[in-house]
Amino acid sequence: MLIRLAYDIQFDLPFDTPMVALLHVHPSRTHDLLEPDELHTEPKLDVTSYTDGFGNLCNRFVAPAGHLRLHSTSLIKDTGLPDVVNELAAEIPVAELPNEMLVFLLSSRYCEVDLFTNIAFQLFGQTRPGWPRVQAICDWVHQHITFDYQQASPTKTAMNVYTDRVGVCRDFQHLAITLCRAMNIPARYATGYLGDIGVPVRLPMDFSAWFEVWLDDRWWAFDARNNMPRISRTLMATGRDAADVALTTSFGTAYLSHFFVVTEEEVETPTSQQPLDPETAEPMTDLPYFASPPGA
Amino acid sequence: MLIRLAYDIQFDLPFDTPMVALLHVHPSRTHDLLEPDELHTEPKLDVTSYTDGFGNLCNRFVAPAGHLRLHSTSLIKDTGLPDVVNELAAEIPVAELPNEMLVFLLSSRYCEVDLFTNIAFQLFGQTRPGWPRVQAICDWVHQHITFDYQQASPTKTAMNVYTDRVGVCRDFQHLAITLCRAMNIPARYATGYLGDIGVPVRLPMDFSAWFEVWLDDRWWAFDARNNMPRISRTLMATGRDAADVALTTSFGTAYLSHFFVVTEEEVETPTSQQPLDPETAEPMTDLPYFASPPGA
Amino acid sequence: MLIRLAYDIQFDLPFDTPMVALLHVHPSRTHDLLEPDELHTEPKLDVTSYTDGFGNLCNRFVAPAGHLRLHSTSLIKDTGLPDVVNELAAEIPVAELPNEMLVFLLSSRYCEVDLFTNIAFQLFGQTRPGWPRVQAICDWVHQHITFDYQQASPTKTAMNVYTDRVGVCRDFQHLAITLCRAMNIPARYATGYLGDIGVPVRLPMDFSAWFEVWLDDRWWAFDARNNMPRISRTLMATGRDAADVALTTSFGTAYLSHFFVVTEEEVETPTSQQPLDPETAEPMTDLPYFASPPGA
Amino acid sequence: MLIRLAYDIQFDLPFDTPMVALLHVHPSRTHDLLEPDELHTEPKLDVTSYTDGFGNLCNRFVAPAGHLRLHSTSLIKDTGLPDVVNELAAEIPVAELPNEMLVFLLSSRYCEVDLFTNIAFQLFGQTRPGWPRVQAICDWVHQHITFDYQQASPTKTAMNVYTDRVGVCRDFQHLAITLCRAMNIPARYATGYLGDIGVPVRLPMDFSAWFEVWLDDRWWAFDARNNMPRISRTLMATGRDAADVALTTSFGTAYLSHFFVVTEEEVETPTSQQPLDPETAEPMTDLPYFASPPGA
Repeated sequence: MLIRLAYDIQFDLPFDTPMVALLHVHPSRTHDLLEPDELHTEPKLDVTSYTDGFGNLCNRFVAPAGHLRLHSTSLIKDTGLPDVVNELAAEIPVAELPNEMLVFLLSSRYCEVDLFTNIAFQLFGQTRPGWPRVQAICDWVHQHITFDYQQASPTKTAMNVYTDRVGVCRDFQHLAITLCRAMNIPARYATGYLGDIGVPVRLPMDFSAWFEVWLDDRWWAFDARNNMPRISRTLMATGRDAADVALTTSFGTAYLSHFFVVTEEEVETPTSQQPLDPETAEPMTDLPYFASPPGA
Repeated sequence: MLIRLAYDIQFDLPFDTPMVALLHVHPSRTHDLLEPDELHTEPKLDVTSYTDGFGNLCNRFVAPAGHLRLHSTSLIKDTGLPDVVNELAAEIPVAELPNEMLVFLLSSRYCEVDLFTNIAFQLFGQTRPGWPRVQAICDWVHQHITFDYQQASPTKTAMNVYTDRVGVCRDFQHLAITLCRAMNIPARYATGYLGDIGVPVRLPMDFSAWFEVWLDDRWWAFDARNNMPRISRTLMATGRDAADVALTTSFGTAYLSHFFVVTEEEVETPTSQQPLDPETAEPMTDLPYFASPPGA
Repeated sequence: MLIRLAYDIQFDLPFDTPMVALLHVHPSRTHDLLEPDELHTEPKLDVTSYTDGFGNLCNRFVAPAGHLRLHSTSLIKDTGLPDVVNELAAEIPVAELPNEMLVFLLSSRYCEVDLFTNIAFQLFGQTRPGWPRVQAICDWVHQHITFDYQQASPTKTAMNVYTDRVGVCRDFQHLAITLCRAMNIPARYATGYLGDIGVPVRLPMDFSAWFEVWLDDRWWAFDARNNMPRISRTLMATGRDAADVALTTSFGTAYLSHFFVVTEEEVETPTSQQPLDPETAEPMTDLPYFASPPGA
Repeated sequence: MLIRLAYDIQFDLPFDTPMVALLHVHPSRTHDLLEPDELHTEPKLDVTSYTDGFGNLCNRFVAPAGHLRLHSTSLIKDTGLPDVVNELAAEIPVAELPNEMLVFLLSSRYCEVDLFTNIAFQLFGQTRPGWPRVQAICDWVHQHITFDYQQASPTKTAMNVYTDRVGVCRDFQHLAITLCRAMNIPARYATGYLGDIGVPVRLPMDFSAWFEVWLDDRWWAFDARNNMPRISRTLMATGRDAADVALTTSFGTAYLSHFFVVTEEEVETPTSQQPLDPETAEPMTDLPYFASPPGA
């Protein structure tokens, strides 16, 4: 299966603003790309690349005051298969986890593991370890949290989600990640493209967040928001939580003015993005996938 | 100057408990050690070592249910000079920071940079950039936060410190780190030994926390708790905040039963620790330097 | 001076919903009314009245599922004078306060006095007691908090305002009230009409919140949002904080669909509200003056 | 049955401190007193009485800097019967509640009803209305919250209890009250004496908190901490939550130095309190039943 990937993100910047973007397809999927995955900027900027501590491909640049456009289009080969389900995947005792996994048991900005010890054990202490426990966590989050774009907040933590019972994609994952870690299961946050393939299309399209847990000897994708195996996840970045892998991090004030994403099956000719007009797709502001931590 | 370093930390464990310890002198100081710096355990355990993502030397082991003792004594050479003060050290624009520094501008578990944007700019927007700004931050924290062991809490974040106005060593540093990051100055958390050398002795002795900021092309030590140049800081570990570098992280319930640290000048004969009797030094429980995130 | 008072508030209710409304002019101003101040409902409902524990005139009714309109228009006589300023009004020692004032020193839902002891004394411990201290509190709040309708939240407390540095009218007053109480000055929340008389008109018009403090032997109006003496405050209700005097409290889900308020000088003929078209005045949703505490 | 009631509470005050005490047996029980219930102070102070807005009998005085002792002993007649259980007591629709009950549906300092709407409906939306629903709430709180004096905090709210899963007597009641109100059941906080009669004695004795709900046409006592019918509750005060009915409220710093309470059956001679030596009963500090809101 071929998947068309594209984005067009625009900002208004009152001042020259240093930015970091994590908008590349993850290095682990580079070999599947059929078209180059390049970040284009308008105005044309001097963009440098580096790999962060989690293995993600990052871009840095300084955008001048005024209007900024970041866009790309690419094509990737996909198995067309849904997420793997393996009910037998086993939980690894902490003592036997690889050293590099330990960091994914700790607390992070949006995943306050230290606050969830009692809650997690009350809710999931009796569940079967391993895959069934992670699935029980996803089920609980999926059933108790309501999706609502209007209540998105970039500062919402797992505990806020647990008490508000409302959130967007990333909030579902933060809560599930935190509950997994509280049960000693390594879990990390993932961002990427996820088309509505094999499911009803929701517009406007958006990037997606899911999470991964370490069972047996590998990472497995889970998704407490959709809570069903999905086709065509295209990973962009992983980290402890959304603080590590914001799509863009602006070191200064940045007003999102346009946001447009395409993830869809490319059936014959690469014209698939035409039916959707960027101008009519409703721009979404206050998206929690963008961070403006300091100096905003 | 020679500094005697020693600790004796004891736990009661209801179950077999995997633990990670960051109790080694930092690799950057290994060449100054005059006696080996080894973690001894009672009972004797199979301890393995690894270096974490921040370059710290870590130990892992599984402690059996019952009583656990971790102890060490070592001797290190020190310049005997106080912390360097360099009022001219300049702030580096975000655009020119090395890639590896960017992570120290982001939010982390105990440093919610995203919540402090307005506060930081109101308080420090008019201060002179660089060293004077960091010093202004330390002064503010030092003057507005009261030290109180009774109000230590391992879940206290920078925002909690800002509103409570009370905390222990690590809390002062978390708040100062967060304010620095909110002003686009990379800052990281540091733990280590800090003897009361050249200042009145406070008993019982304890490990210490301070922080480092990146100015010009290096890290500099600052200490919002003591807020004065001090002699004999012996670094153990650095990280985003205390979640990364807890002295010990227990993956299960662990009751701290004894806590004893020595950091003092070794003048002639290595008998210096005798004046202090471990049995009379008041054991401190609920110390926030220890983490029991999951499964507690 | 004559002031035209009017409101038109509409809800969509999925179910039959018991409601309480505090939309009457306060009993202390009844003698100034030149037209009756009656709550009209569409559909026409059985509305009963009672006086709450704070002396406010309240209405109760059960609104049937569907569309609900609450509206009124009235005319009141006003001195036309701005709020009184009395720099000599003295702080009364707690020991000499009337018994009934003590409750206005305590913590309430949106005014966590117990959390502000340290902050209040650090900020205002050196200010001159009495009127100057209250004014210093208003100045501080006015200077440090930014008004933003977009960031209104009905659950925002004084501490949230203090840390966010952003809020709407009621948030400014909650923070100022809390700081006054923390300094042992009785303070209570007030809601009412406040026209833009003698100041630039801000549209759409809205009800207003301010607060009152007890100095000498009476209550005085202060307003940390506008922070200047204003003309034509028409009191509707007072209480500990907004939880006591929500304009409407719905015991069930209620969607605000239309919100229109008029407060303006009636110069000659009572046609003044015509220039403003209710249909074009932007309806404001998520207004924090409405409460749907339980059963929503 | 005769119940001996006594307390001896002592403070150290750095400054002259105005105080309010709610240490009297509630007026509704005055007719059962066999010995006068008088507040004695050392030094002897000028104490005045008043009734607060909830009908509680309060004392006011100004304690001079130094040591303060508040003590009393009294004897009361009790039915000796356990709390009434009435599974048939019915929930009253909001529309039919007496006006005075509405305030007990609203949010208050420690009972953030507005934050619990989603949680309460998810947990109790399917329970049978009336007594069974209140009992289900008590059961849930009793099963999910652990009692721990060490984790008492005077600023802990119902939401803090819900997330920490740990608390003292008043915390259990605050959470249960909040959940009841979120389900549209009027609930208020109660303090008083509760002896360990017919149950194992827990030392040191303490005052107790419970709560009351309005079902049918009266208030009924519930107790989420003990969650069983108990004998000999002697009511002292009721209010929205602990902010309204702190045993003592100090308008200034007050260090609790001694705390001793007796509630026990007086069998023959009034010597019953002798077996307990006040000097050996462990004094409990940081008790959340005392408030020092402002000026501390």
